[in-house]
Amino acid sequence: MNKKISIIGAGSWGTALAVLLANNGMSVTMWSIFEDEIKMLNEKREHVHKLPGVIVPENVTFTSDLEKAVCDAEVVVVVVPSQTVRQTAKDISKYIRDDTVIVSCSKGLEEGTGLRMSEVIGQEIKDAKTVILSGPSHAEEVGRGVPTAIVAASCDIKAAELIQDIFMSPEFRVYTNTDVVGVELGGALKNVIALCAGISDGLGFGDNTKAALMTRGITEISRLGVSMGANPQTFAGLTGIGDLIVTCTSMHSRNRRAGILIGQGKSPQEAMDEVKMVVEGVTTTKAAYELARKMDVAMPITFEAYEVLFNGKNPRQAVYDLMMRNKKNEVEELDAKWL
Amino acid sequence: MNKKISIIGAGSWGTALAVLLANNGMSVTMWSIFEDEIKMLNEKREHVHKLPGVIVPENVTFTSDLEKAVCDAEVVVVVVPSQTVRQTAKDISKYIRDDTVIVSCSKGLEEGTGLRMSEVIGQEIKDAKTVILSGPSHAEEVGRGVPTAIVAASCDIKAAELIQDIFMSPEFRVYTNTDVVGVELGGALKNVIALCAGISDGLGFGDNTKAALMTRGITEISRLGVSMGANPQTFAGLTGIGDLIVTCTSMHSRNRRAGILIGQGKSPQEAMDEVKMVVEGVTTTKAAYELARKMDVAMPITFEAYEVLFNGKNPRQAVYDLMMRNKKNEVEELDAKWL
Repeated sequence: MNKKISIIGAGSWGTALAVLLANNGMSVTMWSIFEDEIKMLNEKREHVHKLPGVIVPENVTFTSDLEKAVCDAEVVVVVVPSQTVRQTAKDISKYIRDDTVIVSCSKGLEEGTGLRMSEVIGQEIKDAKTVILSGPSHAEEVGRGVPTAIVAASCDIKAAELIQDIFMSPEFRVYTNTDVVGVELGGALKNVIALCAGISDGLGFGDNTKAALMTRGITEISRLGVSMGANPQTFAGLTGIGDLIVTCTSMHSRNRRAGILIGQGKSPQEAMDEVKMVVEGVTTTKAAYELARKMDVAMPITFEAYEVLFNGKNPRQAVYDLMMRNKKNEVEELDAKWL
Repeated sequence: MNKKISIIGAGSWGTALAVLLANNGMSVTMWSIFEDEIKMLNEKREHVHKLPGVIVPENVTFTSDLEKAVCDAEVVVVVVPSQTVRQTAKDISKYIRDDTVIVSCSKGLEEGTGLRMSEVIGQEIKDAKTVILSGPSHAEEVGRGVPTAIVAASCDIKAAELIQDIFMSPEFRVYTNTDVVGVELGGALKNVIALCAGISDGLGFGDNTKAALMTRGITEISRLGVSMGANPQTFAGLTGIGDLIVTCTSMHSRNRRAGILIGQGKSPQEAMDEVKMVVEGVTTTKAAYELARKMDVAMPITFEAYEVLFNGKNPRQAVYDLMMRNKKNEVEELDAKWL
């Protein structure tokens, strides 16, 4: 199979996916808004800053011309920061065809609206056929050909299966899933728990504490998800607990790094300044807190994270308050409201 | 509350639980078959080999006299290697009263029979009121007072709630669960996946690979569990994915260490010789393989582990065979047989 594929965004993940698709025999065009990034990629065939050591094959072309990148493409892969997805979708909407499949790789909820990325794309591109690509996948590892398993999710199972066929390789196993709500919520809300896992590490707590936070964290994410129509099994899968495991145990995660600094005594603002990049988990904590309030769902870890980040609560006190809540039965009804 | 509690087995976990219970105001007696262990504990009030640095409070007494340890106890905590649980249960059966609650802390399936530990105890002690204590809990961390969350599981919810009351502290949060089958299977079968996670690390694969193995691993454990009457939600909890996370990411795990050596090219026998202790995951892989065959349930990771451990299959080939099976939908029906 040979498909014309356009990758919008030339970060580490965009570059790793371009290499994977080119090796699968696809015709790939990468687009970046930055002229020097395109120049560097053309000259070196390597993203020296974001994915050093990985050579981009010859069947990948580079451009900063959005119309040229998109107008011909059968599949458009959107891999930009989550808060720029709306503008990107608006910009490409002029050039895509009715049958173009859009792959969304951005994880997060839109600030202000709390919308999922496929909802944002759907508002900007009428009748968009969108597939979410999500799962435990460090770009550096995919770039090096390390075995990875991931999910292609769409309401349109044919579109998900097309993406499965295009991306699947001996090192990259793709599962399909039709639960778009569950897949997108898992990918966004894991960053809240990664921040908390970092706080726990920064406080000097152990593997027991972190495993408990991750397990109870996915339980409360699942509870919110079910109230929004997701399938609870999705959160036990690659885009739920799988992605959470990778994020909470990796030093690559900015969310976890910011959490460590907060646990060590820095204020949330000082921590974000020191990490020097957008800490997705902070805005997502606010969005999740508001969603949980609106849906009337108990999310004790998210609520404590909100108090630490936005109301100056002492993180050690937050952990002890979590530990000493009323005694509970573990297998709660997922539709129970306040537990 | 003050209860008379007997702890059978003075390893690192038995000692950590004795310290926790004594700090909760219980009257604790620790029993060991080894006279020198009792002598050391009496003299130093510290298990210098297995839990160094943790002082055992004055309200813990030590004995090697089993009758003296058990005859008075309201709660007997069995914390011995899984393959010695049958003999231990037989030995204590003479001394326990009808209302004594037995807490089983051993994780594994009995060699030959494939029975769970509570089944073994039930065969040796008629009408035993058994509670399983399981979850992500390194003894060294519990000994240091690191925040930990764990599960007390029993068909008898009153017994589980008693154990919850006795063990719960500001650093030790106990949830109840009535799904004994799910809790015991999760605790036993995690060692198969920890061994595979070690093999993946030993082969030089990455965090993506390990997260995928853990996530798909808990899926297949859950599938076997459901076929045996367990609640699928249990495997998404502390005794399922929670314990699996701690085991697969820790160098304390003998199973993971043995796996790493196999991944690096040692034979399974060489790896076990080098780790120099019982590698529970090896016998459990055989038991799980036989159970899966008997119940007609698909467990692709366990089956590949069996081939590597018992039929000399190359581990790298096993990983690639897992990656390239037929394309799948992620959210499989849990009761489906062969996926």
